[in-house]
Amino acid sequence: MSSTMHKSPPNKSQKLIVQKFGGSSMGSIERIQNVARRAVKTASEGHQVVVVVSAMQGETDRLLKLAAGVSSRPADREIDVLLATGEQVSIALLALAIRELGFQARSFLGHQVEIRTDSMHGSARIRSIKADPVHECLQNGEIVVIAGFQGVDQHGNITTLGRGGSDLSAVAMAAALKADACEIYSDVDGIYTTDPNVYAKARKIPRIGSEEMLELASLGAKVLQTRSVEFALKYKVTLHCRSSFSDGEGSWVVPEMSGLEGAEMKGLEGAVVTAVSCDKNIAKLTIVGMADKPGAAARLFAPMADAGINIDVIIQNPPENGRTDVTFTVPRNAADRAVALIEGLQDELGFVRCSLDKRLAKVSVVGAGMVSQPGVAQRTFAALGDAGINIVLVSTSEIKISCVVEDQFADAAVRVLHDKFELEKT
Amino acid sequence: MSSTMHKSPPNKSQKLIVQKFGGSSMGSIERIQNVARRAVKTASEGHQVVVVVSAMQGETDRLLKLAAGVSSRPADREIDVLLATGEQVSIALLALAIRELGFQARSFLGHQVEIRTDSMHGSARIRSIKADPVHECLQNGEIVVIAGFQGVDQHGNITTLGRGGSDLSAVAMAAALKADACEIYSDVDGIYTTDPNVYAKARKIPRIGSEEMLELASLGAKVLQTRSVEFALKYKVTLHCRSSFSDGEGSWVVPEMSGLEGAEMKGLEGAVVTAVSCDKNIAKLTIVGMADKPGAAARLFAPMADAGINIDVIIQNPPENGRTDVTFTVPRNAADRAVALIEGLQDELGFVRCSLDKRLAKVSVVGAGMVSQPGVAQRTFAALGDAGINIVLVSTSEIKISCVVEDQFADAAVRVLHDKFELEKT
Repeated sequence: MSSTMHKSPPNKSQKLIVQKFGGSSMGSIERIQNVARRAVKTASEGHQVVVVVSAMQGETDRLLKLAAGVSSRPADREIDVLLATGEQVSIALLALAIRELGFQARSFLGHQVEIRTDSMHGSARIRSIKADPVHECLQNGEIVVIAGFQGVDQHGNITTLGRGGSDLSAVAMAAALKADACEIYSDVDGIYTTDPNVYAKARKIPRIGSEEMLELASLGAKVLQTRSVEFALKYKVTLHCRSSFSDGEGSWVVPEMSGLEGAEMKGLEGAVVTAVSCDKNIAKLTIVGMADKPGAAARLFAPMADAGINIDVIIQNPPENGRTDVTFTVPRNAADRAVALIEGLQDELGFVRCSLDKRLAKVSVVGAGMVSQPGVAQRTFAALGDAGINIVLVSTSEIKISCVVEDQFADAAVRVLHDKFELEKT
Repeated sequence: MSSTMHKSPPNKSQKLIVQKFGGSSMGSIERIQNVARRAVKTASEGHQVVVVVSAMQGETDRLLKLAAGVSSRPADREIDVLLATGEQVSIALLALAIRELGFQARSFLGHQVEIRTDSMHGSARIRSIKADPVHECLQNGEIVVIAGFQGVDQHGNITTLGRGGSDLSAVAMAAALKADACEIYSDVDGIYTTDPNVYAKARKIPRIGSEEMLELASLGAKVLQTRSVEFALKYKVTLHCRSSFSDGEGSWVVPEMSGLEGAEMKGLEGAVVTAVSCDKNIAKLTIVGMADKPGAAARLFAPMADAGINIDVIIQNPPENGRTDVTFTVPRNAADRAVALIEGLQDELGFVRCSLDKRLAKVSVVGAGMVSQPGVAQRTFAALGDAGINIVLVSTSEIKISCVVEDQFADAAVRVLHDKFELEKT
């Protein structure tokens, strides 16, 4: 194995870069070779490189299909053992592909770098990572290849992190290694002011604060998973979202630009709103005529919390004759379960009925600048009103305004707001 | 998950059984379900069950093909990471299939039961096994499913045990657990007096000593790998070789019947010879006119030992005029490498030439009884002579006589010897 290139003295501005490649970037032998070339390119510029990878595209489905063949109710522990093989195949092949290019590479499974998690199979949470063995390899000039999505609990059981888990592995690894940046490669080349498929005027955002990105991610933008952005914000990891298939700059997600500080920077530049997002997986439930007793709301939401159903916008009308209406939104694909849970409480809570509207969407205006710029809400409502789009519910935070609208008007609302805040302009 | 059956009080004659299933037994969802039913049947008879499995048939080839796509010279460490996924998929699916039948089951990877090995990737040797976690599960009424073929070295790297590794895993696990028996399931239903494809009169052997079995295994019988039988002999593990596809008794391989003790038992029964085996992977090398100097033979064999080439029958003719001929056999598929190594020594050892004959086979008569029954060698030679089969080389041990013959006569030699020692009779 040749080892001339990586033994060259380190670059004076040597950085530690974590690179994450998802399933589509690892979809074939040719694509794995492409990933290897990217890692080697970064290493040959004198940087330390850690690559975190997902299973090859299609592999997880193949494995789940095998499991479905033997089990009607697969046990989560064994499903994690099964699914973890997908990333294991990926790291071995990528390490081999990198070595084929004349660089040293070493693969690590979740338990080998001790990505310790709790024991929630299928959706485990990371507790700690042992960075030492990785630093050791990096100092020996090796490119380190780590299996995403998987960890190990305190008893040595294999766990998996759930949807978007490999992003989370990469960000957590970057935090543990105190990496200079975490590059998230996918088939899109960055974060846009809105979905380019909805509005062609959408513009790539070169830099965005982690908090703004967190709003975007949780509001339905698909480039980064919410949990990864939360982690990046908490542990001050700088992300770079870029394309696996081109060399261009992507979008930087920087923890320094969050909150007020970001707002001030944006204020100077005059930009108030960063992006418009849209979440079409929305349903609205209204509990009509609920007795207005202390603790009733808590009792109402408890079964849904236990079932892992996310409650979003909540509005409670002022009580009349000791009764009140409670309205809230849930993900549309959880709406029927939510209704069933609530109807189970009818005797106890004594409400009149529970009504459900699935044909809704949530359109949100996000920007760290708006906290210091009053009037964004007013401009948002005016723009939608002028376009004849009715607002069903509203919720706001310091850096976003979300309007629930009928889903037939969702795309139009996105375009109207994108125009209103002139997001196509740099 | 139902747990009524396995919580019944243990059978008074409760045994701890290790069951090993190879790739063909795990070749499809249906076959995995069949394996699950076998394990559950044994458990529901009140026994403790540990199942050791190989990768699904075809999986290892699929993975090696992927590796060949990215690497011209795959590094053994990463190949082990890759191949170990095959068994990992198997244990997860089998544990799920067992749970589907209402029994508790738990899978373990090599590193999780700490099958510690040396660091010889691709052909690692087992150093120790931690039996405690397995005993704990068994005492909880769980069926334990363990990945064969894989282990972990002292640095936490995944290793694999090489050809026949899953058999070895099973036997080693049986030894570590002090199991009552280790059942080796395959697509043949036992050990035969000779290959039934060569001679239809071949008879299944109900009981055979480990030492005899060791001779048979190393002489080319394919049911059990030599390393597994060695391990079984050394650690007094009783093996039961049986069919995955039928319920009949197979062949028992028992450590107690080996050597003299076995011979005495056999002597009482009158049987002297247990089986006739044939190894067609044989080539003969002759080093002609080698200077008869001290240490010359050691010098001759050293490079082949270093290259891992097994030397078998060795004959050195008495020296004449200070020169001697040395003849020995090697596996046919290593013969060309052996010749190249020897020719590299020609200047140093000053021999005249190295001749090679690849068209040979080794036919062996095996039986613990022969050590106390003189005349077996004479009867063997007579039988072959009467049949007009020329013996090229002979080697003997306490429990076997091997004759190297031209390979065109190998099958005939097997039949002649099978008849001579009346092996078709019980």
